[in-house]
Amino acid sequence: MASSICKHAAIAPSPTTFRSNRIPIRRVYLIRNGRPSAVRCSLLRPEYIPNHIPDPKYVRIFDTTLRDGEQSPGATMTTKEKLDIARQLARLGVDIIEAGFPASSDADFEAVELIAREFANVDSDHVPVICGLARCNKRDIERSWAAVKHARKPRIHIFIATSEIHMQFKLKMSPEQVVEKARTMVAYARSLGCEDVEFSPEDAGRSDREFLYQILGEVIKAGATTLNIPDTVGYTLPSEFGQLIADIKANTPGIENVIISTHCQNDLGLSTANTLAGAYAGARQVEVTINGIGERAGNASLEEVVMAIKCRGEQALDGLYTGINTQHIVMASKMVEEYSGLRIQPHKAIVGANAFAHESGIHQDGMLKHKNTYEIISPEDIGLLRSNESGIVLGKLSGRHALKAKMLELGYDIDGKELDDLFSRFKTVAGNKKNISDDDLVALVSDEVFQPQTVWKLEDVTCGSLGLSTATVKLIHANGDEHISCSVGTGPVDAAYKAVDLVVKVPVTLLEYSLNGVTEGIDAIATTRVLIRGEDSVIATHAYTGESVNRAFSGTGASMDIVISSVRAYVNALNKLLGFKNRLKTEDPNKSKVIHTL
Amino acid sequence: MASSICKHAAIAPSPTTFRSNRIPIRRVYLIRNGRPSAVRCSLLRPEYIPNHIPDPKYVRIFDTTLRDGEQSPGATMTTKEKLDIARQLARLGVDIIEAGFPASSDADFEAVELIAREFANVDSDHVPVICGLARCNKRDIERSWAAVKHARKPRIHIFIATSEIHMQFKLKMSPEQVVEKARTMVAYARSLGCEDVEFSPEDAGRSDREFLYQILGEVIKAGATTLNIPDTVGYTLPSEFGQLIADIKANTPGIENVIISTHCQNDLGLSTANTLAGAYAGARQVEVTINGIGERAGNASLEEVVMAIKCRGEQALDGLYTGINTQHIVMASKMVEEYSGLRIQPHKAIVGANAFAHESGIHQDGMLKHKNTYEIISPEDIGLLRSNESGIVLGKLSGRHALKAKMLELGYDIDGKELDDLFSRFKTVAGNKKNISDDDLVALVSDEVFQPQTVWKLEDVTCGSLGLSTATVKLIHANGDEHISCSVGTGPVDAAYKAVDLVVKVPVTLLEYSLNGVTEGIDAIATTRVLIRGEDSVIATHAYTGESVNRAFSGTGASMDIVISSVRAYVNALNKLLGFKNRLKTEDPNKSKVIHTL
Repeated sequence: MASSICKHAAIAPSPTTFRSNRIPIRRVYLIRNGRPSAVRCSLLRPEYIPNHIPDPKYVRIFDTTLRDGEQSPGATMTTKEKLDIARQLARLGVDIIEAGFPASSDADFEAVELIAREFANVDSDHVPVICGLARCNKRDIERSWAAVKHARKPRIHIFIATSEIHMQFKLKMSPEQVVEKARTMVAYARSLGCEDVEFSPEDAGRSDREFLYQILGEVIKAGATTLNIPDTVGYTLPSEFGQLIADIKANTPGIENVIISTHCQNDLGLSTANTLAGAYAGARQVEVTINGIGERAGNASLEEVVMAIKCRGEQALDGLYTGINTQHIVMASKMVEEYSGLRIQPHKAIVGANAFAHESGIHQDGMLKHKNTYEIISPEDIGLLRSNESGIVLGKLSGRHALKAKMLELGYDIDGKELDDLFSRFKTVAGNKKNISDDDLVALVSDEVFQPQTVWKLEDVTCGSLGLSTATVKLIHANGDEHISCSVGTGPVDAAYKAVDLVVKVPVTLLEYSLNGVTEGIDAIATTRVLIRGEDSVIATHAYTGESVNRAFSGTGASMDIVISSVRAYVNALNKLLGFKNRLKTEDPNKSKVIHTL
Repeated sequence: MASSICKHAAIAPSPTTFRSNRIPIRRVYLIRNGRPSAVRCSLLRPEYIPNHIPDPKYVRIFDTTLRDGEQSPGATMTTKEKLDIARQLARLGVDIIEAGFPASSDADFEAVELIAREFANVDSDHVPVICGLARCNKRDIERSWAAVKHARKPRIHIFIATSEIHMQFKLKMSPEQVVEKARTMVAYARSLGCEDVEFSPEDAGRSDREFLYQILGEVIKAGATTLNIPDTVGYTLPSEFGQLIADIKANTPGIENVIISTHCQNDLGLSTANTLAGAYAGARQVEVTINGIGERAGNASLEEVVMAIKCRGEQALDGLYTGINTQHIVMASKMVEEYSGLRIQPHKAIVGANAFAHESGIHQDGMLKHKNTYEIISPEDIGLLRSNESGIVLGKLSGRHALKAKMLELGYDIDGKELDDLFSRFKTVAGNKKNISDDDLVALVSDEVFQPQTVWKLEDVTCGSLGLSTATVKLIHANGDEHISCSVGTGPVDAAYKAVDLVVKVPVTLLEYSLNGVTEGIDAIATTRVLIRGEDSVIATHAYTGESVNRAFSGTGASMDIVISSVRAYVNALNKLLGFKNRLKTEDPNKSKVIHTL
């Protein structure tokens, strides 16, 4: 894919000399007189130099799904999930992955370290920079460096608030003290051996301009290589944000030696527009998240920003382009939806279920063979295979090989035990269900592959309702012990959850519960998603406020039986919680062996 | 509320003379040095004159939730639902309600007519304009006029495509023919007695500029009062869209005698930014939908555009303002979510569940008493009462009066039979559940109030699983007949749905099924939402393509029992479908009396 030659190239690659490695194929549609008139290809990604981009039109994509995105309520992810997402981000061709905030908790530290090591010895054309966030203090910076230093391209991202309201009420520091702190801490990060240091003046959008130029100038002198300008409260309009970037570019001493970056929150629904305005005004790094997740209304979404630059960069954005292979967008979006538990709305731009759908029937007209009448992006551009267009059809008799090929077609490259497990569940479903759709397979693979490390595994559930609902569950512990319990409840799911509680013995609050039929018909596979919070806290430090956060954990499960689907989701959420809490601290297996037998 | 005096007014109302009636209180925060420094109030809405706004800073809000929003896949609404939404839009203070596309189907015609009559004799300070869409032909215009003419302020909205790609492939007309058609049809609408005619050049964003000036100039001469500029494929950047509006304003002959309007699709996530750019460049009407619903990625959302103008109008948008009473936003959002079946994502700007939520614990710090450190809009501004802040707490012993007061507090003004039915269900839940949260009440009121006209009513469901799942349902027809049936299925919901099918005998396909626990704990009330499509089509004509659309219908149900909740949703969706299909055409009640008795 990465090296295929674009068939429709009508404009020669730009004469700029790229010094470095290949990037996935890039197609830019030039729309003239209402129709795409040319497509331009580029096969090179400029060499990575921390404070300089050899091609002035290249915009770096900095993905912070694993750091800022994970700060969303309930979006806590396990180390394995973070690693999966990091790998997918690398496939996408993201330039920088902000892998976490290492000083937040031991779990966060480990996840960042693991991701850094993952990208230490990769033999690939493209290796993303791995970045760790740090508050403006020595300990945070040391922790961040200890976690990211294993990466082939490590970066530390240091931030401190610079708006009057934040300096006065949050930091309780004078502007002079803030400048001094920023200067010395950036220098400290460099002194540790980190050659790639990003600095963010938090709440830049509401900071005094002159003060901003001053502090940014100082951190450049101290060795910062990227200056990130966040619109922390998301209230800036595109014209204002573009002006802010332009002003910083025009007035900050030494700015020509560093990269300017944007980080736009979405509180007024303007994050994509602000990000594009920032890039147009001179920013060459944009901070985004998959699906636009993040606290409150989230961040600028990678898919919107990247597709806007891809579709309009040539014509409306001075020729800007990115190194993203957009065909991996759908898979990244689904993975983040699963792991974060944050569902996207059907009318979400680019990746929503309706983004390419029209009300039934309206696209049968012959004129709509001219796709461009309504669609400016084709589903294939973002890796979306429409069900009826995909080549391989699976049935009851399909083998392991056909399943693997089909999953590859859907964007899932799985093998080994994962494939074995998926195949066995596929066979069960194929025996019970007439048509196995792509969505069924995606639900199964989500349930099988997108799961936390197993502490407890659900073996069986049986329910009965003889006046009262009762449920019996059989769970297998990681140590091999079998536990059976039963309980009554207000309904079968309630009874089954109570039975699970009798075995697992971790007091939790169920915050959210939802169940979806993923395919047409009620004999569909049902996907359940739950969100739980432990009564004994799993604590992490919040980056901006410095406060302790009691984390919530999501879990998903899929089955044709809604009770089994529901219990799987609950057990998976508990596994996630337990993975954080006690790192598999083993209990006495006999203690909870059988609570109530039927 | 509408006439209360703003406490913090620091700037006198603008000296502009408003000629007309009061609008809800308007507060504009001026943010200087990072803090709101002043609040401005205005109590007047300029008089409504179709082609002129006495105050040059006033922006009209044109809501098309009922027309463009309803075009979303599965968002079909009943006449009652549309009327409910229209009333809520009037409460919000929307200037123009696009109530539908009367030529689309008889059901659409009736809904627009009913809404027009609703606003014929309202004795209120503010009466919205009722608008009906029409393609550029006599029949459509006549149907539109016949439906809207009853309104106190009727408007016809005529559109025709003006981009080369649409004229050539869709209309198969020359540019000259398109101009002639537009001119004569606008004149025809005026000749019917309609003094308020809006004209839209479809796909204006991709139309030739000179041609656009020409056709717009011609329709102004023919009597158009508002010119709406749609970015139909949603691919324009804010700077470009602003320039388009500015160019039209500068180059169209006679433009000073009409209102310019924006209509921005959201395919690249830029609809809010484009709308604001259009207003800044001179548009004084903006077309929006609640929650941003609409085909593909939807439209600019009312709440984002309105709140951006409210928060930043004074400082960043030349003093623009609207007549919206933002405290009705949350209720409007919930109502549209219920009726359209289109869930919004947790990180949706302004109205998403997380829009005002932070990860637990981070906002306990003293400095966060200064709300402005992270929140630029307070929940109260949009009518969101946080659960722990609301005054009335309901319990098992609460009476009808307390329930009514509580519902008012939550924004639901209900009475009569609706209140009786709600009270009876409240009592059942109060007997079974320890804590009755606001969310529980909202789920109940949604299930009770936001429902289609009843053809079939669910009386009872019982399930059993003795090896196979079985369910028995008892349904009451509108004519009073009782029907009982039972069926087996792959699970209790499947069995119950099959039993319902045996009674209702309308072949449908279940397109989507989802179930959500609305409150904490598994003893919560579960809300189910289904989407069905009949095999015998319910046909409407699609506005833009002119093709027939086979509509899909959503239904919701709520109960502490997931099977009951699921069956309620299914029966409600069937009722909605039947309401469209046969307008209560009665079948022989004996025919399907008992299919299988247990």
